[in-house]
This record gives sequence, structure tokens and C-alpha cells, in this order.
Amino acid sequence: MTAVPPSKILAALSGHANRIPPVWLMRQAGRYLPEYRAVRAKVPSFLDLCFTPELAADVTLQPIRRFGFDAAILFSDILVVPHALGQTVTFSAGEGPLLTPTMGAKEIAALDKVLDMQALAPVFATIERVRRELASDVALLGFCGAPWTVATYMVAGRGTPDQAPARILAYQDPQAFAALIDILVEASSDYLARQLKAGVDAVQLFDTWAGVLAGEEFDRWCIEPAQRIVANLRRRRPDAKIIGFPRGAGTSLPRYVERVGVDAVGLDWMIDRKFAREQIQTRTPVQGNLDPLVLLAGGAALDRAVDDVLAAFAAKPFIFNLGHGILPETPIAHVERMLARVRKR
Amino acid sequence: MTAVPPSKILAALSGHANRIPPVWLMRQAGRYLPEYRAVRAKVPSFLDLCFTPELAADVTLQPIRRFGFDAAILFSDILVVPHALGQTVTFSAGEGPLLTPTMGAKEIAALDKVLDMQALAPVFATIERVRRELASDVALLGFCGAPWTVATYMVAGRGTPDQAPARILAYQDPQAFAALIDILVEASSDYLARQLKAGVDAVQLFDTWAGVLAGEEFDRWCIEPAQRIVANLRRRRPDAKIIGFPRGAGTSLPRYVERVGVDAVGLDWMIDRKFAREQIQTRTPVQGNLDPLVLLAGGAALDRAVDDVLAAFAAKPFIFNLGHGILPETPIAHVERMLARVRKR
Repeated sequence: MTAVPPSKILAALSGHANRIPPVWLMRQAGRYLPEYRAVRAKVPSFLDLCFTPELAADVTLQPIRRFGFDAAILFSDILVVPHALGQTVTFSAGEGPLLTPTMGAKEIAALDKVLDMQALAPVFATIERVRRELASDVALLGFCGAPWTVATYMVAGRGTPDQAPARILAYQDPQAFAALIDILVEASSDYLARQLKAGVDAVQLFDTWAGVLAGEEFDRWCIEPAQRIVANLRRRRPDAKIIGFPRGAGTSLPRYVERVGVDAVGLDWMIDRKFAREQIQTRTPVQGNLDPLVLLAGGAALDRAVDDVLAAFAAKPFIFNLGHGILPETPIAHVERMLARVRKR
Repeated sequence: MTAVPPSKILAALSGHANRIPPVWLMRQAGRYLPEYRAVRAKVPSFLDLCFTPELAADVTLQPIRRFGFDAAILFSDILVVPHALGQTVTFSAGEGPLLTPTMGAKEIAALDKVLDMQALAPVFATIERVRRELASDVALLGFCGAPWTVATYMVAGRGTPDQAPARILAYQDPQAFAALIDILVEASSDYLARQLKAGVDAVQLFDTWAGVLAGEEFDRWCIEPAQRIVANLRRRRPDAKIIGFPRGAGTSLPRYVERVGVDAVGLDWMIDRKFAREQIQTRTPVQGNLDPLVLLAGGAALDRAVDDVLAAFAAKPFIFNLGHGILPETPIAHVERMLARVRKR
């Protein structure tokens, strides 16, 4: 007899279809919430917020208190990994992250090879604190950036329109770039295993920049590293639940799903829903994929889009979410309207 | 008996596979060429270059003289259409295009409904001039921006990372946005018909921003307008050859091909080539899809990528091209290396 999963999210990740799908939103703990902005104002920098367990736990719980989402996601950032590998990472207001660029073989060789777990201790303390305060039917999600996406920031030193610096390095010096990816595969595996040990119920691997990779490059820099991380995690924790989110994968998504072996895959808002239902959801539970801009826009377009997402995916194992992070300008009333519509079923 | 098409490009567009595929590059007349930069320096603004037939024709012919490409593409810009609809369009050095934003129903109602063909007369003069100077086995391509992509610039007044302003307007006031698209469908049809009359052998419809559209929005704002333009053109010129390029269409590309009925479709560099060969090239000739960044990067990665593109597509009707415009920093030696590799077959 199989045990009943403790939350709707874990039920979906185990292949059960919930009558009313569970809901959470990427970046749900964030700037669109006044209570988030109030906490953010208490600390000088964004990383201080990530590394102060009391505040990070509070911020993680805020959207659960306000909206009753089915999952809380650890408040943190994908760039804590390069930080814990010895790269200088700062967040400037308005400009986003700034890192010392890791432009070539020499800089890559100079990186720490193993994650400084002590530097990440506040993250695990946050997880323990949140798990204690969270009801047992609300899942707690951990996460990290996928190696490709983290590498794009490490190489460029910042976000760029198309992350060209990392793509050029990968073409011109694939060996050096592979060394960087190798470091990140091990660091991500260690980091996620430690998050699971601290109490998260599942982890999500965010490959935000997967969509800029050409076909063969997608296999090498997105699929293969994800595969290795999943294998590492399953070896250490056979019951680990893993959500993959290779944003923009499009026509390469079936290959990702087949080869990586995640428990669920996040869908961005651009994917054709019929394709996703027929080619993806037949193989694995899916999560997504409301356009963050229609949540911002609201009104009849929002209602119709919510209905379209539900009509496409709700009959099978499914987690309702956005197709990318919630935008800071999103009105709270639109989130409430969306939730009421998903849950009135 | 069918007449032999006068050029390899037209042969491909008519469904013939060439033993050595024809080649041209998007933005092949542009800043990576020193002879282009020399001509550009002669005129104060980019639009002056577009609207001076002698210079525009020279610039159009430059890459043919240097590389012997199989097609010349009219040197112009997609924003000459809003310009000829009465919107103020300027190009500032380094910042890209700036337009008076067309943010809502009122501004859309104030636009001219019919293209000012007199304002575009220099474009047609350029076409006539180029066609006279071009060998008969080199195709001359005309183009315009697809309504969705042109509308994104008209609404935002400039390029943005994700063209959110147009997407929000389309969600919040679909009627006003549809009115803008309607104007652009008619204007584009008239403009392309006039280009064909002036002497271009085929036209390409650039939907550079198609990839940001969510599933249903893709049908409404990318597929349907393209369908109407193709129908309009075929009514006026039954032999019109039309290449569609909905960049980033991904999983929606089969639907585009099926419903729009273009003679060939441009593939971006992100698409899975196996998918494109099996789901797209079985229905229509394809054009593409070398990653512009691998052309910039050069070396062994470039050779391998060229071979991959040829292996995927060259056995069937195919036009070798990039998956997006050539980058200004691309070394000329890399273009030569690529061409030699494509043509040594």
C-alpha cells in the first residue's frame, strides 16, 4: 500500500492528478508584495536578506500567509552558489547582480572546486525554520540555478540580453567551459542534497537561459549537467523529488524530459499547450504555464488564460504556476482573482 | 514542361533541392563590412541611407561583390512602414530606433490607414537599380516586418528586452490592438506587392518577436496576420514567392507552416534540427539556421556547426542562412570560411 503523499504538490510529483491542482508562483516571495518590500528595507543588501534566516524565513512564509499557496519556495538566489565558490557577487539596486567576470580558463581554474557549505549555513537554517512553521500539507521547495544558467552570469559578470559571453566561451574554449560546468554540477548536487537534508520536500532546477542554446549545445550544456545532478541526488537520496525548468527549451523539451528523468517539468508560457500535453505531460507531470504578463494585465484576458491552462493540463498530474517569475508590478488583486478561479473548480 | 528557375534560391523556393545549397545571410549588408561603414559615414542618419537609392543599392550589392552570395536582400528597415504610416521614427547611434509610442486606442486611431507610397518611392527605386545591376542567377529579396513585430516597436516606441508594452496592450485592449494589426496587414500587403512589382524575386516576412507570444496569442497576432498577407499577395501576384520567419516559434512552428502557406520558412538557431527536419522540412522548404554566435566565434566550432546544418537540411529543398542576423563584430574571415565549407560539397 502506498502512503498518501502529505501535500498536493508531492501528490502531483508522484504522478497523482489532484481534483483541484496545487498552486504556487515562481518568485512568489518578492517585490510585488508590500510586506516583502518592508522587510527588504531593513537590510542594506539583497544577499543580507538571503543570509539572515529570521528574515529569509519570514519572507518565504509571507505569500503562504497571504494567499495560502500549496508550496513555499525558499527565499534565496541562484547566485549564492558562485558566491560560495569564491566569486565576488553583489546586487546593486536597479542594475541586478554584478559578479567578477570569469572570462576564461585561468579564472575558471582559480575558482574553489567545492562549495563552502559554511557560507551557505544560513540557507539551511532558513529551511529548518520555515519547515517548523509551515503546515504539513504545504510543501517546501528548495532550488538552485542549473549549471548553464549560473555559468552565464559567472562568465558575463551580469545579466545580458542573450548571455552571449558564455555562449562564445563555450564555442571557443569548450574544455575550459566544461571545467566550469563540472564544478557547478558537483556544487549544485551537494547544495541540493544539503537542502533536502535540511527539510525541503522537493527541489527545482532553474535553467532560465536554456532557450538561447542551439540544438547540440542544448544537449551538452543543459541536458547533460541536469542528468548528472539528478543522478547524483538520486544516489544520495533515492526519494528526492526534482522539478526541472529549462525555460525556452521548446522543441528540445521532449529530449530533456526523456533523458534527465525529472519528477516534473516546468513549462514556460511560450510553449504550445497541445504539444506540451501530448508530448510532455504523457511522460511526466507538468508545472506552469500562465504568462506572467497576463497576470499583470488582469481582466477578461487573465480569466481566459487561466481557463486555457486548466483545460490543457488539469486532468493529469499538474501544478499550476506561471511560465516565468511573477513581475514586480503585478497587482495583488490579480493574484487573488487567479487563485479564486483555479480553486473554484 | 516547367521552366528552369533562374536562380538557386528560386529553385529551392519552388521545392527543388540544389546539390550545393544557395546561401545568403540575414543582415548581410551591414556593419560587419568596412565598405558598409564607409557608406554609412556619408549620411547623417540611418533612414537617409535607406531612402537614398544610389547608396542603398550600393550597400545592397556590397556583400554580393565580396562573397558572391546567392541572394541580395534589399537594404532597408522594418520601421519604414510605421514611418510611411505617419509615425515619427528616428535612429539614434547606439540606442537603436526611437518612435513616438502608440500606447492605446486613441493613438492607433490617429495613424494613417494607408501607406504613403510616395514616402517609400526611394525603396522601389533602389530595387529597380539593384535588379538592373545584379546577375540573373542571383535572387533579389524584398522584405517587411510582420505586423506583430512592427507593432511591438510602434507601441513601445523602441526595442525592449521582451516587448512587454505591446503584449500588455494586446491583453488589456485586444480590440485596439487588432485595429493596429489590421492597418499593418494591409500596409504590409501593399508594400510587398509593390516591391514585387519593382523587381524583387521573393519576399521575406520577418517576425523577429514572434517567440514572446503565448500559445493562443501566437495564433492571433503572428499566424493570422501572416495568413492574411500571404492571401493578399497571392491574390494580386499568384506567382509571389514568400519566406516566413517567425523567430522563436518553436513548438508552434508546425502550426504556422500549415496555416500560413509560405513557400519556405526561416528557422532560428534554437530549434531542434531533428524536429525541424521531420516536422517542418517534410512540409515546406527551410532556410537557416547557423547560430550567429558560432559564426562570430569561428574555429572548429564553426566548422562543426556548418556541417550539422548541412547534414540536417541539405538533402531537401534548403537555403543556407543564419538563425538570426549576422552580428556586427563578426570577422569577415569567418564568413569566408563558412562559405568555402558550404560550397566545397
